[in-house]
Amino acid sequence: MSASVIMYDLIVTRWQPDSRGRLERSALELYSERGFENTTVAEIAERAGLTERTFFRYFADKPEVLFSGGEHLEEIFSTAVRSAPEGLSPFDAAQAGLDAVAELLEQRRDFAVLRSSIIATNQELRERELIKLQSLAAALAQALRSRGAKEPSATLTGEIAIAVFKIAFERWVEPTTEEALNKIVREIFQEMRVLSNQG
Amino acid sequence: MSASVIMYDLIVTRWQPDSRGRLERSALELYSERGFENTTVAEIAERAGLTERTFFRYFADKPEVLFSGGEHLEEIFSTAVRSAPEGLSPFDAAQAGLDAVAELLEQRRDFAVLRSSIIATNQELRERELIKLQSLAAALAQALRSRGAKEPSATLTGEIAIAVFKIAFERWVEPTTEEALNKIVREIFQEMRVLSNQG
Repeated sequence: MSASVIMYDLIVTRWQPDSRGRLERSALELYSERGFENTTVAEIAERAGLTERTFFRYFADKPEVLFSGGEHLEEIFSTAVRSAPEGLSPFDAAQAGLDAVAELLEQRRDFAVLRSSIIATNQELRERELIKLQSLAAALAQALRSRGAKEPSATLTGEIAIAVFKIAFERWVEPTTEEALNKIVREIFQEMRVLSNQG
Repeated sequence: MSASVIMYDLIVTRWQPDSRGRLERSALELYSERGFENTTVAEIAERAGLTERTFFRYFADKPEVLFSGGEHLEEIFSTAVRSAPEGLSPFDAAQAGLDAVAELLEQRRDFAVLRSSIIATNQELRERELIKLQSLAAALAQALRSRGAKEPSATLTGEIAIAVFKIAFERWVEPTTEEALNKIVREIFQEMRVLSNQG
């Protein structure tokens, strides 16, 4: 790495404060236009008017662009569950957490829809998404235990709430869907209650 | 590969019809003794008294020894759901499938416990297990649709039943557990019903 490249990088970064956002947008556009596999980091950086070095300052690799928001989302989720009113049942506390997540995602619907369509095309990405969702279920169980939930209730609620969320999310990103995500989440929760009382 | 190696391999295979089972046992012993990462295919073959070539006839790689039974299990599961009495609710049909899976696993408890303890030690293996469980949830949803279940009931039941099974399985493999797996599955299902009616 020559000094001039480092200088160029510092200057560009200083002059363009939203490098991260531009890299994210360029990456999603390219993944969508050419396919995730056929896009290189060099191309993402070029479209964003930045260097590869800047890309790697923000993202460890190509998939990371799609998953780096996950930690923030998990944080929002856990905080909402922990601070939900005392005395709520585990499912209702989970619901409060999902409301907070839905609110966040609703503000970025275009991003969420595009991201979801890219993930659907690639097995490695689908697997990584599955692992992230599992981590979300574990975080939820942890937050519920901190509210006094016992086992297996905490883990069970964590798993079921994430299953409900996953199904709701898939309906929400369909092009024809107009309903808000938190409304769909409530409907699927209700469907789950009906199902579990049958038979 | 020389002709003599191939001949040796054929003879050993012919004389030892259960090569697959011996490779499986040797692999599990070694993964457990030395750790999954520190075991080589050559060592597995050697302990089984077979060649590496024979190993690769049965298994694509080291993890495959732990996951090759998954397809058979999925088959048993789907068949039991499809052939469950007409008129059962989605959850009760799923329960019939889990009973069949539990029966199969109960016959191989030692293997299941050892396998589970190995998987717990390695992130790659835990992720692969998660992906297999997701595939089981999808197979269950498919079997339920073939019985007339609609969406989102089919997918929701698939996800929830596998979550219940996962939690039950983890309790079952604990060294102090004496209860049968199908009994634990029923208890967790019941817990899920109670939870979903709270709040």
